[in-house]
Amino acid sequence: MEMLSCDLDRESETPLYEQLYTYIKTEIMEARIPYQTKLPSKRKLSEFLNISQNTIETAYEQLVAEGYVEGIPRKGYFVLAYEDLEYVQPTNRTSGQLDQSVQRIRYNFHPSWIDTENFPFATWRKYTKNIIDHENHSLLLMGDRQGEFTLREEIANYLYQARGVHCSPDEVIVGAGIEILLQQLILLLGDNVAYGVEDPGYHVISRILQHYPNEVWPLAVDERGVEVDTLDGAAINVVYVTPSHHFPYGSVLSANRRIKLLNWAAERDDRYIIEDDYDSEFRYSGKSIPSLQSMDQRRKVIYLGTFSKSLIPSIRISYMVLPKRLLEQYKEKLSFFQSTVSRIDQHIVAQFMKEGDFEKHLNRMRKVYRRKMEKTLGLLKLYKEKLEVVSDLSGFHVVLEIKNGMSEGELLDKAQEAQIKIYPLSTYIMEKKYESSPRIVLGFAGIPERELEEAIKLLLQSWEIL
Amino acid sequence: MEMLSCDLDRESETPLYEQLYTYIKTEIMEARIPYQTKLPSKRKLSEFLNISQNTIETAYEQLVAEGYVEGIPRKGYFVLAYEDLEYVQPTNRTSGQLDQSVQRIRYNFHPSWIDTENFPFATWRKYTKNIIDHENHSLLLMGDRQGEFTLREEIANYLYQARGVHCSPDEVIVGAGIEILLQQLILLLGDNVAYGVEDPGYHVISRILQHYPNEVWPLAVDERGVEVDTLDGAAINVVYVTPSHHFPYGSVLSANRRIKLLNWAAERDDRYIIEDDYDSEFRYSGKSIPSLQSMDQRRKVIYLGTFSKSLIPSIRISYMVLPKRLLEQYKEKLSFFQSTVSRIDQHIVAQFMKEGDFEKHLNRMRKVYRRKMEKTLGLLKLYKEKLEVVSDLSGFHVVLEIKNGMSEGELLDKAQEAQIKIYPLSTYIMEKKYESSPRIVLGFAGIPERELEEAIKLLLQSWEIL
Repeated sequence: MEMLSCDLDRESETPLYEQLYTYIKTEIMEARIPYQTKLPSKRKLSEFLNISQNTIETAYEQLVAEGYVEGIPRKGYFVLAYEDLEYVQPTNRTSGQLDQSVQRIRYNFHPSWIDTENFPFATWRKYTKNIIDHENHSLLLMGDRQGEFTLREEIANYLYQARGVHCSPDEVIVGAGIEILLQQLILLLGDNVAYGVEDPGYHVISRILQHYPNEVWPLAVDERGVEVDTLDGAAINVVYVTPSHHFPYGSVLSANRRIKLLNWAAERDDRYIIEDDYDSEFRYSGKSIPSLQSMDQRRKVIYLGTFSKSLIPSIRISYMVLPKRLLEQYKEKLSFFQSTVSRIDQHIVAQFMKEGDFEKHLNRMRKVYRRKMEKTLGLLKLYKEKLEVVSDLSGFHVVLEIKNGMSEGELLDKAQEAQIKIYPLSTYIMEKKYESSPRIVLGFAGIPERELEEAIKLLLQSWEIL
Repeated sequence: MEMLSCDLDRESETPLYEQLYTYIKTEIMEARIPYQTKLPSKRKLSEFLNISQNTIETAYEQLVAEGYVEGIPRKGYFVLAYEDLEYVQPTNRTSGQLDQSVQRIRYNFHPSWIDTENFPFATWRKYTKNIIDHENHSLLLMGDRQGEFTLREEIANYLYQARGVHCSPDEVIVGAGIEILLQQLILLLGDNVAYGVEDPGYHVISRILQHYPNEVWPLAVDERGVEVDTLDGAAINVVYVTPSHHFPYGSVLSANRRIKLLNWAAERDDRYIIEDDYDSEFRYSGKSIPSLQSMDQRRKVIYLGTFSKSLIPSIRISYMVLPKRLLEQYKEKLSFFQSTVSRIDQHIVAQFMKEGDFEKHLNRMRKVYRRKMEKTLGLLKLYKEKLEVVSDLSGFHVVLEIKNGMSEGELLDKAQEAQIKIYPLSTYIMEKKYESSPRIVLGFAGIPERELEEAIKLLLQSWEIL
């Protein structure tokens, strides 16, 4: 694109960069500037419109931030091929309209995406309306630092019934995401603690830890969960594990290893186990796996849970259960931290749980995800020569080992060409090893049920498997 | 109280501790166990009810957490005199009913409390209803890591108009409270940075910093703000200041000192100023104080703001504006952090701002607080011999120096006897100095307008000033 003829009003209260930004945005939205167009260079546009390059840069950067445009170093600004927008969403989306007009990833197999088709909006609105009321005006002030008691009470009841977790509401701490709670834990446990983390594993944990003085050691994982034996002789005090459903492999920590791990922790006062029970609600075959915390007689397990899977990720509510001894230290050392979750939202979730809607929602979603998993596995198993599927019939994703001769990069590129976003296992690995075939963590939960077959077929076609 | 005759059902699905807890709670609520009663000892009750001491402890601790009972070491558990419940609120409060029945602090002069009588509940409900809709089902998934673009856009516009802050939405990061954003800043700036913080000042800042390896130095404050000269020769790289309205003194950083501070920061690449502009919206006389960020030509100011005062504290939304250089580092080093604020709430606030309701709300509240401040000052000035009032006609509190001969402890005790909660200046001081008369930070904002006169009179009576 050679030039943009934009009428700028220099007398207006609206800054020039904003006028330019709004103009370009509208042009893109209304498809007058097509996808992949290169915008004029800052220098040329600056001469043409007689405004500073800074103003143009600000407008362009805003478009970048909003996800309409991407800046490629030494090449310029291009109207974006929307495949790269993992999370960024366009603005003003309350009508939902914009979504459809600009969404250029057709299918996103992100392992942390959930089903958004079956959320009980009406029920949620009802509770919201009840809570946001002048009668509750004291809810506008700060609440309990650990979280609202009524929510902690519901969480404690739920954890006892669903996961066998022993705790009183006083031991529950509510926070705006696992990352927030983990940072509080790191401060609580102090600088002298060395961490062991699963590798592969939930990569955000090691990324957070690298900003603290603590040592971090990777722990290997196999089909029976984390290899607990590697702890012998290692200078590790605290391990972070996903025993009910390893992320991303899906393996369950064996009974033998569980006991070994609990015994290891019991040996020394400064040892603890962080159990991240992120998606244990969703097991589609056999009995649910008991939590490690429920087997722990010595109060050595710090239990982490979240509403990101069981409700919605964007509400940002997670919780941890601290052993009594750590709880006392928490109250002494960290009690100045305010709660990080809106008090109104906490009461909405508490009511949703108290009235039985949470249980109903879980039962319903378990069926939805089970059908999605069965459909996924059923389709993939037809192509055994070219791919191997690893799944333990639980959770939101399966792991694929692809044996069609393509490299990981090729698999990603081919999928992208088909407007499909996928995530390689290598993202979740700290210590890279040689692997014969590339592996993909395929999250099926976010794809609408009626489109799942189509999505998987398109993916397999892009890989020349189907 | 000698004993509790509680019928426990050992066959019930409800755990014993919960039955006991519910029983005692109900007895307290219905005033069958009066205020200040000592509960039976765990040992005795355990024998009497034939259940374990652990079960009783769990029930008692739950009552403590909920705020019905307090545990005094070596004395036992007592039905609580509610004065101590600064934040803890009783459970199940959606009806608002419980509040009135158990609230035993009559008036709370907490400096961070706001007016809850004038919140636009109906408008808020309207936007909430618009956002929570199946059309917006993509809002259930994770959003932009820095915060929703539409909210950052509104914040950037608002900051430019109200505070002269220069920023694009891309430079704004939304977080669940100043503490969360400050922790991200500490990680971003790294271990080798030494901090200077105002003393007295917002005490939470130094309490957070003490958990990190960084050095922290107190900076003295006088009636022209923080004493900038003390930075000469000090090994400090980053200063935390409240230039528009020092907390808690209320002083405004003088123009001279502002320029000195900005020059100090410009001298070295690793120097930055954190400007906490926590309540600058509320100035009741003269022009609003320009933000330090608006005077900064060298991109040395990190600007912090919050909706805790301008909207409500319990929604937990704050924001920071990073200088470009730090923003790049943030994106590189900390981009794995998910947003810590509910995406739905972000859109509600954004709509509230976009439609002009935020501005309306601010204008309305400025008048309410102005009247509250005038009433407070008018009353207090009648007793000049016994107390001195320091106020710059802005914000949510005044500082009182009390000259009636009572010590700080006596002032607090006397107020407590009158069911009034007050906060001494000493809470906000790092390095204690000798002071001739005790000082109180008196937050008037949370007291309903029609009760303010009564509340202040009761307080002065308790101090034998009136």
